[in-house]
Amino acid sequence: MAETSAFAPLEAAGDPKHAARATRSAGRKMRSLLLDAASPLFRERGLSGTSITDIAAAADAFPSQITYYFRTKEALFVECACRDLLYLARATEQAALKARTPRGYTHALAATVTAGDSVAFFAEALALTRRRQDLAPLVERTIERLHSEGARAYAGQVERHGWRSLRAPDESSRRFWAVAIGVILEGYAMGRSPEELCAEMLRVLGEQAKSTEDTGRLRLVEERDASSNSNGEG
Amino acid sequence: MAETSAFAPLEAAGDPKHAARATRSAGRKMRSLLLDAASPLFRERGLSGTSITDIAAAADAFPSQITYYFRTKEALFVECACRDLLYLARATEQAALKARTPRGYTHALAATVTAGDSVAFFAEALALTRRRQDLAPLVERTIERLHSEGARAYAGQVERHGWRSLRAPDESSRRFWAVAIGVILEGYAMGRSPEELCAEMLRVLGEQAKSTEDTGRLRLVEERDASSNSNGEG
Repeated sequence: MAETSAFAPLEAAGDPKHAARATRSAGRKMRSLLLDAASPLFRERGLSGTSITDIAAAADAFPSQITYYFRTKEALFVECACRDLLYLARATEQAALKARTPRGYTHALAATVTAGDSVAFFAEALALTRRRQDLAPLVERTIERLHSEGARAYAGQVERHGWRSLRAPDESSRRFWAVAIGVILEGYAMGRSPEELCAEMLRVLGEQAKSTEDTGRLRLVEERDASSNSNGEG
Repeated sequence: MAETSAFAPLEAAGDPKHAARATRSAGRKMRSLLLDAASPLFRERGLSGTSITDIAAAADAFPSQITYYFRTKEALFVECACRDLLYLARATEQAALKARTPRGYTHALAATVTAGDSVAFFAEALALTRRRQDLAPLVERTIERLHSEGARAYAGQVERHGWRSLRAPDESSRRFWAVAIGVILEGYAMGRSPEELCAEMLRVLGEQAKSTEDTGRLRLVEERDASSNSNGEG
């Protein structure tokens, strides 16, 4: 259940090398507890609206425990957002498992990522990390993992159903998440509903349902050579 | 030169109806001066690293003038970011005017938006607006204008050169800017260079140069019907 591997280096940094297994395990539990308590507060009130004291109270812990495990509120914010994004990525994969077509797969992914605020939370963490490059390694590991797991899941479905796709799985995954961040950040600023966000994501991905038949077909795509049909403009 | 129409309603709100033309003009000049002074400070130090006192000093103005014209630092931040994004949009159109092919057009747009930090600045404003819905109308007008002008510019090029495009101009514009926000926000968090950001944008847009010939061709795109080629799963 707990998402540990992407954060292992950070965690190890706080542990003395000779720590007993029991101590490490208790430390992991405490870290996880603090992340669980901080995440809803950060989502609701943002970074500046949440204090270390608030988080400590919500976790029934001492403020010093937060600084011991995470050093700063900003580091805790980014780690919460990264962890939540990887949980979301797993949920999207689960939701998309039943898809029978590439279009159904994309629809299931888009509906899942737009249902909650994890992507908006992560976008805030990205904006923060721009000013706090000490937090960049965690963000980088998270994004690498997001894309590698997304690509693996998509490739698995392509293989399983014998889909033919124009795009490589890695490219599809990068495209999907970049679009998700852009559309959701923009949509949250304008107070859009999850349904509107999902429709906009599908529109931007070029996946809006033009027909009710959700099956792939042979398509002929003509891209006329520009020089052969110019109207003479310089 | 000055980008006024998207901000006219805000500006008008601060002006008494009977104000003389000269006063309105002086007010516009002062607003513009304050925006010019604030923008580089916000870009360099972010919202929390910039004070109203800093901005007043940079503009050779009084702090009370900032609150008179913009009410809050947050409103000034969002207005700076919106104005700068519309300047960038105009610069991208100019840069893309010489493109002879749809691919060349996209390359010119991507190179221009990734050369500076206006999109990252705007992404920060979007994240802020999520928590400050009183600022949403300005963001909304900016995005509407971004898309309508982007779609108009692209449609003009399509018409001029007789390009055939699979996507509607409005859809192309929305897709381009959503991808720009997602890729640039992610890339800035990881400290990527403009060249890396541009390459990633083209990759995500599916526009990386696979051949050196930059001409459109007739392409056959096969999307096999999933049900006809399933390997029996589910």
